Amino acid sequence: MSGSVFGNIFKISTWGESHGKALGVIIDGCPAGIEISEDYIQKDLDRRKPGQNKYSTQRKEADRVEIMSGVFEGKTTGTPISLIIMNTDQRSKDYSEISNIFRPGHADYGYESKYGFRDYRGGGRSSGRETAARVAAGAVAKKLLSILGISITAYTLSIGSIVIDKANFDKNEIFENPFAMPDMAAANKAALLLDRAVKNQDSAGGIVQCEVSGIKPGIGEPVFDKLDACLAKAILSIGATKGIEFGLGFDASRVSGSFNNDEFFMSGEKIVKYTNNSGGILGGISDGAPIVFRTAFKPTPSIAQKQKTVTSDGRNTSVEIKGRHDPIVVARGVIVVEAMTAITLADLILLNMCSKMENVKKFYDSIQ
Amino acid sequence: MSGSVFGNIFKISTWGESHGKALGVIIDGCPAGIEISEDYIQKDLDRRKPGQNKYSTQRKEADRVEIMSGVFEGKTTGTPISLIIMNTDQRSKDYSEISNIFRPGHADYGYESKYGFRDYRGGGRSSGRETAARVAAGAVAKKLLSILGISITAYTLSIGSIVIDKANFDKNEIFENPFAMPDMAAANKAALLLDRAVKNQDSAGGIVQCEVSGIKPGIGEPVFDKLDACLAKAILSIGATKGIEFGLGFDASRVSGSFNNDEFFMSGEKIVKYTNNSGGILGGISDGAPIVFRTAFKPTPSIAQKQKTVTSDGRNTSVEIKGRHDPIVVARGVIVVEAMTAITLADLILLNMCSKMENVKKFYDSIQ
Amino acid sequence: MSGSVFGNIFKISTWGESHGKALGVIIDGCPAGIEISEDYIQKDLDRRKPGQNKYSTQRKEADRVEIMSGVFEGKTTGTPISLIIMNTDQRSKDYSEISNIFRPGHADYGYESKYGFRDYRGGGRSSGRETAARVAAGAVAKKLLSILGISITAYTLSIGSIVIDKANFDKNEIFENPFAMPDMAAANKAALLLDRAVKNQDSAGGIVQCEVSGIKPGIGEPVFDKLDACLAKAILSIGATKGIEFGLGFDASRVSGSFNNDEFFMSGEKIVKYTNNSGGILGGISDGAPIVFRTAFKPTPSIAQKQKTVTSDGRNTSVEIKGRHDPIVVARGVIVVEAMTAITLADLILLNMCSKMENVKKFYDSIQ
Amino acid sequence: MSGSVFGNIFKISTWGESHGKALGVIIDGCPAGIEISEDYIQKDLDRRKPGQNKYSTQRKEADRVEIMSGVFEGKTTGTPISLIIMNTDQRSKDYSEISNIFRPGHADYGYESKYGFRDYRGGGRSSGRETAARVAAGAVAKKLLSILGISITAYTLSIGSIVIDKANFDKNEIFENPFAMPDMAAANKAALLLDRAVKNQDSAGGIVQCEVSGIKPGIGEPVFDKLDACLAKAILSIGATKGIEFGLGFDASRVSGSFNNDEFFMSGEKIVKYTNNSGGILGGISDGAPIVFRTAFKPTPSIAQKQKTVTSDGRNTSVEIKGRHDPIVVARGVIVVEAMTAITLADLILLNMCSKMENVKKFYDSIQ
Repeated sequence: MSGSVFGNIFKISTWGESHGKALGVIIDGCPAGIEISEDYIQKDLDRRKPGQNKYSTQRKEADRVEIMSGVFEGKTTGTPISLIIMNTDQRSKDYSEISNIFRPGHADYGYESKYGFRDYRGGGRSSGRETAARVAAGAVAKKLLSILGISITAYTLSIGSIVIDKANFDKNEIFENPFAMPDMAAANKAALLLDRAVKNQDSAGGIVQCEVSGIKPGIGEPVFDKLDACLAKAILSIGATKGIEFGLGFDASRVSGSFNNDEFFMSGEKIVKYTNNSGGILGGISDGAPIVFRTAFKPTPSIAQKQKTVTSDGRNTSVEIKGRHDPIVVARGVIVVEAMTAITLADLILLNMCSKMENVKKFYDSIQ
Repeated sequence: MSGSVFGNIFKISTWGESHGKALGVIIDGCPAGIEISEDYIQKDLDRRKPGQNKYSTQRKEADRVEIMSGVFEGKTTGTPISLIIMNTDQRSKDYSEISNIFRPGHADYGYESKYGFRDYRGGGRSSGRETAARVAAGAVAKKLLSILGISITAYTLSIGSIVIDKANFDKNEIFENPFAMPDMAAANKAALLLDRAVKNQDSAGGIVQCEVSGIKPGIGEPVFDKLDACLAKAILSIGATKGIEFGLGFDASRVSGSFNNDEFFMSGEKIVKYTNNSGGILGGISDGAPIVFRTAFKPTPSIAQKQKTVTSDGRNTSVEIKGRHDPIVVARGVIVVEAMTAITLADLILLNMCSKMENVKKFYDSIQ
Repeated sequence: MSGSVFGNIFKISTWGESHGKALGVIIDGCPAGIEISEDYIQKDLDRRKPGQNKYSTQRKEADRVEIMSGVFEGKTTGTPISLIIMNTDQRSKDYSEISNIFRPGHADYGYESKYGFRDYRGGGRSSGRETAARVAAGAVAKKLLSILGISITAYTLSIGSIVIDKANFDKNEIFENPFAMPDMAAANKAALLLDRAVKNQDSAGGIVQCEVSGIKPGIGEPVFDKLDACLAKAILSIGATKGIEFGLGFDASRVSGSFNNDEFFMSGEKIVKYTNNSGGILGGISDGAPIVFRTAFKPTPSIAQKQKTVTSDGRNTSVEIKGRHDPIVVARGVIVVEAMTAITLADLILLNMCSKMENVKKFYDSIQ
Repeated sequence: MSGSVFGNIFKISTWGESHGKALGVIIDGCPAGIEISEDYIQKDLDRRKPGQNKYSTQRKEADRVEIMSGVFEGKTTGTPISLIIMNTDQRSKDYSEISNIFRPGHADYGYESKYGFRDYRGGGRSSGRETAARVAAGAVAKKLLSILGISITAYTLSIGSIVIDKANFDKNEIFENPFAMPDMAAANKAALLLDRAVKNQDSAGGIVQCEVSGIKPGIGEPVFDKLDACLAKAILSIGATKGIEFGLGFDASRVSGSFNNDEFFMSGEKIVKYTNNSGGILGGISDGAPIVFRTAFKPTPSIAQKQKTVTSDGRNTSVEIKGRHDPIVVARGVIVVEAMTAITLADLILLNMCSKMENVKKFYDSIQ
């Protein structure tokens, strides 16, 4: 197990290195009868695509997705959906000089220790480029969720010390500025911060917020497969993340129970809550309110400044990282957060179909 | 799947309700030849046991563990280890009046929606009492890790707004005060805070820090089964947690790459880092430095104050929660954090044995 | 992983040794709302119970099952169901003399090689006694299936060379004779064969046939989780089995395609087949006809005759196996075959709920 | 879950339809450092390739495998290995007339019932063509096993009523005749049998025997993941198989225990057995003798004779199956049996590395 399989029912297997021939994903367990097309998936991939502005790596990849199996006459067949994205703009020679050096902040040392050697070209499998496959699978999961009336919106909450002002919140702005911030003023400040970072051969991080609407109560499994536990694994499996919090999150540890508890009331026939400090999850199970969480991205470790490090044969040295690197990955991470959220939710919703014998019987009786 | 199975190789299955006959866990996949005894496991259970001071539920449970299988002549046999803890002090009648009410901050509504009805006695399966089984399994995992030279220490970093002062750090204090804080002065302040909360029929939360020493590089699997992703799932599957962060955590999003990157250098033959902002994990794989993370516990939702809520048949009402509840669960959560950390690490270390063909061959050649 | 967990959604974990304190099983993922009681489960356990006639081990075990969790007010809650059966009639001293000898036909040598030592008392975990836990879990699965109109009947087709005569088939006879043969005349002949075997300090084997009615088409997953593949694993995981075949089985390899193919026709609104050579499974998926398979049990390896063997420290020796052993396990295996069939079907039916998006949508829309 | 993922540590995910763009497989969990090349894998694929003689489908596929990821500088890196085989000779129009008919002996009806519609072109995912991906993955598993000194040989034991004569056994013959029979005389008789079948627009089946040498004791997990149980699932997941038996197999049910038991003795320092009736597996764990099993393939269901069937909208009709079909699949199945055996063994051997704490400690201590 090299950890490239995720999920129980809606199960994905990804593959591919930054500078290999291609990247891809197999989705095993997607229900039959969902309309899906390459154009549909491409839209999400385009949001992750490199080289779209000066704050993103200048590597040029079309990132065109091709559906290789599992879709017939425009619909999913229930069998594995194989999606492939060819690599076209590898410049592996950029990396030859770091083949025997462990870059600070990167997984190089861990991989070498684990496997005895590594594909050093652009980080190989540990590259952020790996997330293209997640985004492709996530688009399929999102389509499934959209049929159920569920939608996911992630955006940049902060970059470095620049935080959006909720008073300025404008959802459309997410797609308008290079930082996926729903606040133009904050995005402008972030641009200044990034310009300075680039000038200093440095990088920046940020926080992404994700909100899910349309989630009904009862999703998530007790004890180990709680909805928040599964989302935490999904999100912290994204390369540069360093933390996640739900609802009030770390601030919940600082308030009283009477403040933190969300009281229930009836809104017509519907059970709702006055507040949503829980972030839509209680005891690991959805409570019908929107799911809300935040995740922290660290600053990109690939910086051009000279850094101290060691060689794989144990000598002290220093390194200045060349190549085409993002000074920040937060904005490109937004769509990856959405993808992993969608994949996790699709899986847990499918699992939940078996919770009540009543539903099992209804299903079995419906078979002719 | 009701989510009560955790792990790949070192795999645990837990069972039991707060007011059922007993709680228990099966460990499937523990290597043979580890010395284990009921007394050894009991020590960790005693750290979680209720009723040990006035800030913990007054329910009296001996929480005696019994080894039912998998140990022969004092050693693990390689086959499933079944551990049972009988319940002795259930007072189910305390709960009859909330049988058709959804307690704010609890999983009642989610369970009822998911399963159509629920065991309302003390939260049933959603009770924190479920964690006793985790602690028992965790003790076995810790024993495995101790043989490898790995040790885990968790403690309370903060309660409400009271944060420990690192200058006062005293590891022994963890076991001396009712809050598991390694700082006596902070613990005294926390006592005042809690006394006030109890008087106000309210509750408090806090933050637990966990540190693991002895971890060698290479542990954790690429992409989805990253070490931090797996730990995040393990920790956020503990009832009252609302967030987790590794190393610098959320603060990493606010600093520059040049600050955040940990530079490497040779210390004799060993590769080490000047700093440990990564919290011992880079690209999801251990980097040889201690693992460091923090998790936030929300304030206990069971409070005696009157709260608005609804009945399961859809009427507005209010509830004052009786019964014997903890005004804070952070201190009892410390040992649960250690347990889930140990279980996760044991599993990932076993998985890592298969990473290199060289090791596979060495193993196979050694079979007579 | 020591291989004691089985299933995907309806997932069981068993534990316990022949001469340990108890045996048990956890069922994780049983849907909520199924009426279940200890008395109901006991009926199946009584069919497996030792000591019921002279062809079965004279060990006396009440094999009383106790429900420890997961059932509330007489119904499954959706959370783990823990079932325990205490051991009461262990005579471990019977085994001390074989503690360092590898019994022919037993797993002793394999266990010792794998784990470095073993619980030699009655075979420990490799004992047929382990199947009591399967039968208990199987009873729950059967209850689930019965609600869907599915029933499972297994019986002894042959013992040694004695085969039932289909002309004499009488289902009630299965429960009337000590061999679970649906043909009294054959059972009488089997008794003579067994009496001779016992006199010769020898043992016998046989073949069990299993039939499942009420199975609708579409159950089973393509490629690796085919219905027959999953059943084969389930059945060949029962201790003494040496083979399995579906429908015509091995004979299918000897006939022509035109003979073997089952032609379809309409029976009113229903699609049916003229024959059932497929055994109810085509391409790994149920075809709506009854599932039919056979499994071969080898003769019990524990015989009192002197046999050559070796000691664990590598010396040639001989052994005469004492203790209370079955001269045949086929009849007691019948209920184990039913149990494993039920567990496998329950799991695959639950999995099948997610096959069509149409059903997923219907389910999600039904949540309030 | 659509059942296209197999294995625990050495885990494969296959994808692709008979008349889609391509077929492929991802291997997740292959240890790092194994030399592998496209040419090496191609050799096994060539043994499965269609159109090699008149008893095989006349579809012309080069079946060229391409390594897309997971191999760097000629060696596996430990990360997912993606293998792709492009389809080149699809003639989908051959199938349009059976798009709404359920072919007898095929999975058509099951798929349609399960998923609501199906990719009818050449059976889509249910086609035997799917096994090309298994053979590619199997070649990698075989390479792993060969490093450990394990080799697998499968061959045709019988075709229809023609059984090889063990006196004539000639291993080289397996690769010389179109039936993979290690007996030229039997192969000649089989050719006559097949010529007659083709003339009658009919088909034939047969039995494949598989033998594994170099297996040390201790492989396989107790209870559910027994070595024979896992192999049974692996082998019966191959399309046309109808049964499997180990060692004496079904005949074991007809002999006495004293005959069936394999007695042990010391051969120098080594524990060996006088006979191998167990087929190398006792209690689900390898006993050091060669693994021996047989599997039955049914006659190909695609025959040109007119057969009765029904349409998907419920009318009686008849069908004569056109297209390019194998009159027998046994010989092409031989390499698929080898592949699935190799994949299963690789997985269980990797799992076994964690059986003893002693080995875990040795491994961990070896990390620098």
